[in-house]
Amino acid sequence: MKLAFVGLGNMGLPMAKNLVKVYDTVYGLNRSKGKEELFAQAGGKVGLSLPELAQTADVIMTCLPLPEDVHNVYFADDGILANGHPGLVAIDFSTVSPELSQNIYAAASEKNIDFLDAPISGGPPGAEAGTLSIMVGGKEEIFAKVKPVLEVMGKNIYYVGPSGSGSAVKLINQLMVGIHTQAVSEALVLAKALGLPFDKVFDILNNSFAQSRIFERHYTQFIAKDHYEPGFALELLHKDTNLVQELAEKKNLNLPVGQQVNELLREAKSSGYAKEDMSSMYKFIQEKNNRS
Amino acid sequence: MKLAFVGLGNMGLPMAKNLVKVYDTVYGLNRSKGKEELFAQAGGKVGLSLPELAQTADVIMTCLPLPEDVHNVYFADDGILANGHPGLVAIDFSTVSPELSQNIYAAASEKNIDFLDAPISGGPPGAEAGTLSIMVGGKEEIFAKVKPVLEVMGKNIYYVGPSGSGSAVKLINQLMVGIHTQAVSEALVLAKALGLPFDKVFDILNNSFAQSRIFERHYTQFIAKDHYEPGFALELLHKDTNLVQELAEKKNLNLPVGQQVNELLREAKSSGYAKEDMSSMYKFIQEKNNRS
Repeated sequence: MKLAFVGLGNMGLPMAKNLVKVYDTVYGLNRSKGKEELFAQAGGKVGLSLPELAQTADVIMTCLPLPEDVHNVYFADDGILANGHPGLVAIDFSTVSPELSQNIYAAASEKNIDFLDAPISGGPPGAEAGTLSIMVGGKEEIFAKVKPVLEVMGKNIYYVGPSGSGSAVKLINQLMVGIHTQAVSEALVLAKALGLPFDKVFDILNNSFAQSRIFERHYTQFIAKDHYEPGFALELLHKDTNLVQELAEKKNLNLPVGQQVNELLREAKSSGYAKEDMSSMYKFIQEKNNRS
Repeated sequence: MKLAFVGLGNMGLPMAKNLVKVYDTVYGLNRSKGKEELFAQAGGKVGLSLPELAQTADVIMTCLPLPEDVHNVYFADDGILANGHPGLVAIDFSTVSPELSQNIYAAASEKNIDFLDAPISGGPPGAEAGTLSIMVGGKEEIFAKVKPVLEVMGKNIYYVGPSGSGSAVKLINQLMVGIHTQAVSEALVLAKALGLPFDKVFDILNNSFAQSRIFERHYTQFIAKDHYEPGFALELLHKDTNLVQELAEKKNLNLPVGQQVNELLREAKSSGYAKEDMSSMYKFIQEKNNRS
């Protein structure tokens, strides 16, 4: 079986490297060639273009930061849909709107290409350990066919339902991640103002009803170390909470706190926190309070 | 050792019953006498008034729903401070402002009564199982003295720092509980609008970065069963988020999402959800969207 992986970023590179450990023929493709070199050093194959990969792979996977990237890699003239052979299975791990997933699915179907939306949760540590959560939308028989490939990269692998439903659940996940990030930020800003010992506060709250996986991630990996190299960049969380708001509007829903968090992330993004880990929201809320 | 427990409610009754299993002399006192009967049936002693308990107990504990109740039980003429003997240890498990805790502490000190603020987290199931988190403020040597008593009721028992710091950490916990409750509500309202299967969505998110103890509590114990008998009444969560806002204002802090959640809880409270479990916020957000 010939596998292709497009997008060797923070998530894609460790995922593709895990595939190399199990499958003989795994091709990688990335815009910046440094990542391709790292992939080749880990035993991955490189050197084929996107049209060549779409023409020859059995399964082509994409993991890209922005919806526009996903749109291009599928819909461009040198993209997957224009060049893919009938019977190709395409799997997108990116976080995009259910609508984009469904549009790719529909266009792929016309070419007899099978498409799954399969967004992931777990961050770079989960990608490296092969313990990602993967939430899949599309045809169930195609899911069953590629499940062994997904199992190399993830631990909790779910078939959700029709095309777009993987993306939908991922956006709900991101809505909660965004709100939990703000909960952590406001809690610690208050703790700081009260002069409470941070490690003890974390320990108590993590054993109480304040517990969340995001609290543990943000505190132990970033805030406690005062180290905010991503991780998951704040601008990417904002991209996701923005997709949530667009989805909510389309459904005529008002999600008031989701909306406020999206707005606060937008502010933080344009205040110098775009490229820092999302946990730097704590620093932004702190700074906002110091200013006022 | 003679113990007294004032306030045999949802939390107090199971806590006091656990004390009865270990200590010979545990007196209970409650406004409504039905709870006292339940306590007596479990082997507890009843029949002494608050002044009598304050005059004769070694340790007197209070667990009351509202700050005004706590204020009265300590400061009234027939209350603990006016009647307590020198050397009495008083422990308050209620959720109140750090300021009230410190005021009681100061007034108690003048009477040579030792006072600890010791709010709890874990809900009625934690109270019954004796696995509460207890976060304690006050003198460390008094904490050490009564720790064996606390260990009968809790599993994670923390000395935080000076008087009021137990209450401070508890309010931070409640800030996070309030925000997490809203996160669950908005996430499930969106999932419903998208027609996604709830059990599967919960299972996926609970294994992803959306995980929180509140999500698990709200979903499995209440929302999945469509059953909202408390538990922890929504009006009590609102009381707590309100205390958080008062504390933030006193510190000149703006906690924007905490403030919005407090406002939404106020709305839900006056829309018929006051006495339902706090997880009924999901129903309120749903209803608010259906109305608009």
